[in-house]
Amino acid sequence: MDIKKESLELHEKLKGKFEIKSKIPLKDKSDLSLAYTPGVAEPCLKIKENKEDSYKYTSRGNIVAVISDGSAVLGLGNIGPEAGMPVMEGKAVIFKEFGGVDAIPLVIGTQETDEIIQIVKNLEPSFGGINLEDISAPRCFEVEEKLIKEMNIPVFHDDQHGTAIAVLAGLINALKIVNKKEDEIKIVVNGAGAAGIAITKLLLSYGFKNVIVLDSKEAIYSERDGLNKYKKELAKVTNLEKENGRLENVLNNADVLIGVSAPNIVTKEMIQLMNNDAIVFVMSNPIPEIMPDLAKEAGARIVATGRSDFPNQINNALVFPGFFRGLLDSRAKQVTQEMKIEAAKALANMVGKDELKEDFIIPSIFNKEVHKAVSEAVMRVAKSKPQ
Amino acid sequence: MDIKKESLELHEKLKGKFEIKSKIPLKDKSDLSLAYTPGVAEPCLKIKENKEDSYKYTSRGNIVAVISDGSAVLGLGNIGPEAGMPVMEGKAVIFKEFGGVDAIPLVIGTQETDEIIQIVKNLEPSFGGINLEDISAPRCFEVEEKLIKEMNIPVFHDDQHGTAIAVLAGLINALKIVNKKEDEIKIVVNGAGAAGIAITKLLLSYGFKNVIVLDSKEAIYSERDGLNKYKKELAKVTNLEKENGRLENVLNNADVLIGVSAPNIVTKEMIQLMNNDAIVFVMSNPIPEIMPDLAKEAGARIVATGRSDFPNQINNALVFPGFFRGLLDSRAKQVTQEMKIEAAKALANMVGKDELKEDFIIPSIFNKEVHKAVSEAVMRVAKSKPQ
Repeated sequence: MDIKKESLELHEKLKGKFEIKSKIPLKDKSDLSLAYTPGVAEPCLKIKENKEDSYKYTSRGNIVAVISDGSAVLGLGNIGPEAGMPVMEGKAVIFKEFGGVDAIPLVIGTQETDEIIQIVKNLEPSFGGINLEDISAPRCFEVEEKLIKEMNIPVFHDDQHGTAIAVLAGLINALKIVNKKEDEIKIVVNGAGAAGIAITKLLLSYGFKNVIVLDSKEAIYSERDGLNKYKKELAKVTNLEKENGRLENVLNNADVLIGVSAPNIVTKEMIQLMNNDAIVFVMSNPIPEIMPDLAKEAGARIVATGRSDFPNQINNALVFPGFFRGLLDSRAKQVTQEMKIEAAKALANMVGKDELKEDFIIPSIFNKEVHKAVSEAVMRVAKSKPQ
Repeated sequence: MDIKKESLELHEKLKGKFEIKSKIPLKDKSDLSLAYTPGVAEPCLKIKENKEDSYKYTSRGNIVAVISDGSAVLGLGNIGPEAGMPVMEGKAVIFKEFGGVDAIPLVIGTQETDEIIQIVKNLEPSFGGINLEDISAPRCFEVEEKLIKEMNIPVFHDDQHGTAIAVLAGLINALKIVNKKEDEIKIVVNGAGAAGIAITKLLLSYGFKNVIVLDSKEAIYSERDGLNKYKKELAKVTNLEKENGRLENVLNNADVLIGVSAPNIVTKEMIQLMNNDAIVFVMSNPIPEIMPDLAKEAGARIVATGRSDFPNQINNALVFPGFFRGLLDSRAKQVTQEMKIEAAKALANMVGKDELKEDFIIPSIFNKEVHKAVSEAVMRVAKSKPQ
């Protein structure tokens, strides 16, 4: 059956993908007097004395909010909060299945950044962490930055960092195959939205030196007019040789192309401008910047997409369940760049030396060990550097 | 074992009383492509076309938020949001067990009414209904009023209306036993907080004529100075004979005492002032205004409390699971007085004629038919008067 029709029917039949499950029996007065009044007054009073005890006596230590304003959902754009909910529910069930994390999908009825910040901030007492989703750039940067500053629980914008970590993992493995070094290669990131900016920052943190980012107009460089503050920051640390022009200009001699932009905008001719053993991650979803077979025909050695029906799926679902598992279990208060790098390395290492090949640079999401490895990497960093 | 100790240990062992359960398998790529991308785009697009479809394709139609700021939790007072969470989790598991309603406990980090209103209002796209809990009076009145005005999903402040409905149900049955008429009796409500005011309004809606309300100072009457706007409104429709003084003054010739005030403030002498066949509902919790044995010694014929270890437990858990079941299933947009009255009558009717006696005026919460009857009553009203 057609996947669209099948998905629609399934959603209608289930009426949503998650439900609440009680962990406590309520069969008689004695049960009720423990779960509820009068017994429940005891954990309340303990927490009143010491707020930290909310992690001891309530579900908080395993609960993450998946929060969106519906302004940039999948490749569908600003479809609004109600319409974004099926995606958030999807995230919630992925959180549970692969990370054992109880995630509560919340879509909110405002797209004013100040209001979003005020709402999320005030939800802090209910949650152990905040996973922001599908908030459009550049608003998402301000929302995340302010929340990180003002909250005492970890805040993670998945579209930025989940994607960036998965990309870095794939790139680490791809470079092993083509045998190129981090500091010698030229990387072109096409797309300066949430994912593009976060990927670039993470690649630089990891040690890549030569990264050029393009927005929908052209390459970003420090003298360019009209850049917003996020792109200006990027211009300080990328494209130091100030190449300008469009993708067909800057792809010349590139070793890696990372597309987080729009369907079908990369041609075979562009790929042919790249160096030998070109690595092409084209993650526009569901339709990539160039189809994998065309990219290969044009000389790309390794191609990855965001799709499950091609090899090498770069998917942030590889990251967020384990990442939050690690954050929650270590009671980390903030997400650090080091956590992201170590999670990417752990993810890359889940592809064994014997398995690693052009069509297998990233492990399967269905391998539970993958999520465990990511969570352990986060915990290692959190424990070595208490916050 | 001591119930306090047992409850504390249970809460610590479980680390919270609820979890998220996925309704959809995620075992392979095909599952993932239906629950998540690319299949999930279809329900998203349907809802984008028609927001009402969020009830068709997401969990919204069965989800209620249980929201508190922790300002008036049980009899514990303003213990803050984190400390209020065990109670909200308790409500959530009661919602699920007795109403099949998925309730999400949310405690929020502000006690500013304007902020609370703005936060809850913006959560509308995620939920099918809002159950406000344990917000102190008189703030709770403003919060509820404004939310009802501004939201398109039902808003219900449980401490007010859940309690009022259970009280009315108990009173309907108690009056059958003592054979007194609604319009002939004198009712004294001691306590002018959230519960006291809502009880009074519901009793008047139902048809009782002579109700006197006291706050912590004395009887409320229209000439009294310094009343807040909620008490002023009350003074227009209660205590028309302008009795004044404290409880020991106005209890003279009363038929019913409803206590929603403080522990041990009613004496045997006060009960002795009441008419024959006195009905005494003393719901301060866990310690009532007067212990049932003392009230009976002083001449009360029917005594009810909020406690599970005495007969006649007036408990709003008898109400909210079924009430919201009915609201959700009828897709009602607002709660009406008629719904509350019909729910109370349905609740009262669940005590059969043969069962009805002084020590059994209110049905058991563990009787699932009770919750069904409440939900059906709400649905009947909703369907007869589409909103």
